[in-house]
Amino acid sequence: MAKVLIIGAGGVGGVVTHKCAQVPEVFEEIVLASRTEAKCKAIAEQLDRPIKTAQVDADNVPELVALFEQEKPDLVINVALPYQDLTIMDACLEAGVHYLDTANYEPPGEAKFEYSWQWAYQEKFVKAGKMALLGSGFDPGVTNVYTAYIKKHHLDEIHTLDIIDCNAGDHGHPFATNFNPEINIREVTAKGRYWENGGWKETDPLSEKRSFDFPHGIGPKNCYLMYHEELESITKHFPEIKRARFWMTFSDNYLKHLEVLENVGMTSIEPVNFEGKEIIPLQFLKALLPDPASLGPRTKGKTCIGCLAQGMKDGKPKTVYIYNICDHEACYAEVKSQAISYTTGVPAMIGAKMMLEGKWMKDGVWNMEQLDPDPFMDDLNQYGLPWQVEEVSQKTGMED
Amino acid sequence: MAKVLIIGAGGVGGVVTHKCAQVPEVFEEIVLASRTEAKCKAIAEQLDRPIKTAQVDADNVPELVALFEQEKPDLVINVALPYQDLTIMDACLEAGVHYLDTANYEPPGEAKFEYSWQWAYQEKFVKAGKMALLGSGFDPGVTNVYTAYIKKHHLDEIHTLDIIDCNAGDHGHPFATNFNPEINIREVTAKGRYWENGGWKETDPLSEKRSFDFPHGIGPKNCYLMYHEELESITKHFPEIKRARFWMTFSDNYLKHLEVLENVGMTSIEPVNFEGKEIIPLQFLKALLPDPASLGPRTKGKTCIGCLAQGMKDGKPKTVYIYNICDHEACYAEVKSQAISYTTGVPAMIGAKMMLEGKWMKDGVWNMEQLDPDPFMDDLNQYGLPWQVEEVSQKTGMED
Repeated sequence: MAKVLIIGAGGVGGVVTHKCAQVPEVFEEIVLASRTEAKCKAIAEQLDRPIKTAQVDADNVPELVALFEQEKPDLVINVALPYQDLTIMDACLEAGVHYLDTANYEPPGEAKFEYSWQWAYQEKFVKAGKMALLGSGFDPGVTNVYTAYIKKHHLDEIHTLDIIDCNAGDHGHPFATNFNPEINIREVTAKGRYWENGGWKETDPLSEKRSFDFPHGIGPKNCYLMYHEELESITKHFPEIKRARFWMTFSDNYLKHLEVLENVGMTSIEPVNFEGKEIIPLQFLKALLPDPASLGPRTKGKTCIGCLAQGMKDGKPKTVYIYNICDHEACYAEVKSQAISYTTGVPAMIGAKMMLEGKWMKDGVWNMEQLDPDPFMDDLNQYGLPWQVEEVSQKTGMED
Repeated sequence: MAKVLIIGAGGVGGVVTHKCAQVPEVFEEIVLASRTEAKCKAIAEQLDRPIKTAQVDADNVPELVALFEQEKPDLVINVALPYQDLTIMDACLEAGVHYLDTANYEPPGEAKFEYSWQWAYQEKFVKAGKMALLGSGFDPGVTNVYTAYIKKHHLDEIHTLDIIDCNAGDHGHPFATNFNPEINIREVTAKGRYWENGGWKETDPLSEKRSFDFPHGIGPKNCYLMYHEELESITKHFPEIKRARFWMTFSDNYLKHLEVLENVGMTSIEPVNFEGKEIIPLQFLKALLPDPASLGPRTKGKTCIGCLAQGMKDGKPKTVYIYNICDHEACYAEVKSQAISYTTGVPAMIGAKMMLEGKWMKDGVWNMEQLDPDPFMDDLNQYGLPWQVEEVSQKTGMED
């Protein structure tokens, strides 16, 4: 029986809070804190059991420490912004609280995805006798656990790993973004990067494309090679992997809209003087697009995120595909968020549960794939993200 | 030897003035008038011979009459806005001056293209002993003359007529419009209309599409059925025509940009409140797009506008294609405008020349196809819009 403090009352924060509230035998007390306490209260009102709410500025270490010392949680679940990972880790060390997050630290305005800053906390957490669990969302998170599970049960050696993230949902608008379109655009226009034979290879934006046939009626979709942060830790912890790549589906329609909006200058963040007022085109575009919060109740369809691994089992080549299918409407009915937030929020709850139940509790800073996958995999089945594992043919559609 | 007064100092006005200035044996004196006299002076400075300039509000009949009575031109060439055709016709009647325009009257804000308003001036012009020549641009204009020429020399009967307008120019921007994008969008999203068996048939926007293989290296381009005003007068004056259609090329890229901009609301004329200011999205889009005036010097490639007519000659089926190829860069080098303005401005000069030389002078209101095509066709060859006529196979690509 433990007390958890959740920081962040966005879509993922809502899901984590709902899911923790569903497991009172582990999460006896819950505090939900955010810069805007009203957002916490709105989430609290959706629940069947009472929780506490609080106001906190996650950029401010003394304010965080004061809150932690007042509430005395066993564990802080950080689902605030990636810019705030380090301040929250610092406050956890100072107040003596375990730490969990779902996305690695990013320096503000730099778009640099790497674990270096957080791995540097290893000694401090060991010395404090506390644990920091990094990246306990879906990808990173479940994908790391899938990889560890494949290694433990299905392949003696993993040679290649393809993490494939498909959102086949439809919100019924010709174009809308789940979050800030600037981040969407940065993602799509960034160079791709993958691991091969001990080093990183760069690819031009959207230049590597495969058609993968997703299960459960989703069917074939175009996937594009991108960099994703779990590639760094997985290739570090499984050095046997010869090639590791991350793929995300984008519809032709989505890419067409981004391309045109970029062409006409609507995605620019350079102010334009218009009728005497400085206007940032991207901000004006956001004002025209549907409010992301309005998409939840109207999104239909499924997500499918999984790991496709090729390697050797008992001296023979074998290919394994392990994945989850998540339904946007079912998620919304359960926790008032669609599958994008749901697939991140549920693993955050399960990671916290693993720690608080002692199954994963170890001093220091840990990535998901370093811990025993079995109890986590069991809980995925029990708490809303059931998975399937299939042996598939060598021809997967992801070949060069 | 005559005096001409040109109203309108936009792209077409510049071309008409240049071309009239090149023919001093007909256009002895030239006055160029516009709401903004500075634009007239800028055009005047490009010329090798002196012309007069004036300021006039073409919506204001008394102001127009005062200018006409002061300048005493033989003919007014109206290349102002289509909304101003009737005020300029009224002023011509009052001052006793011949009239010519390049596009039919449109009631402001109505997008209703028909000759009814101008044909209603027939009695008044006859009574005044003056001529009004309607639609002496390229399409309408040259396309009407091509049709009359085909009927006079190449086919005993015209059964079907396809007017095909291709702009294969490239301004080097991913997206830009030659003129107001609102007009572009209105054009593309309007229903198509064509003449068949004595009546009009409507088609859904962009629903009728053909790939036509344009000559002189332009190659195959997608053409879309649209309504265009010359269909009304040509089918009236050649009632034998069973089917008459108008087609315009749009590139996939152009249509893609318009579709996306419409989808996200950027083409809307409904104001949006943004940071305390009412902003019309379309106006903001215009501010982002390249200035249309900047496209002239950088547009490369050609236009190809022509008439494809099928019918009977000496009792046998025959298909004739008559067309002009115009080069954007050559036009710009000659008159500081690319081919879109050039192909409209040159026929306006030639129509005026036909009237002032007496070859086409008749009291009343006339469309181009009602007059002898031969001297006009000779002048097209002489003044920059040479044409070719070819007998082609029955299979043209424009079949259903």
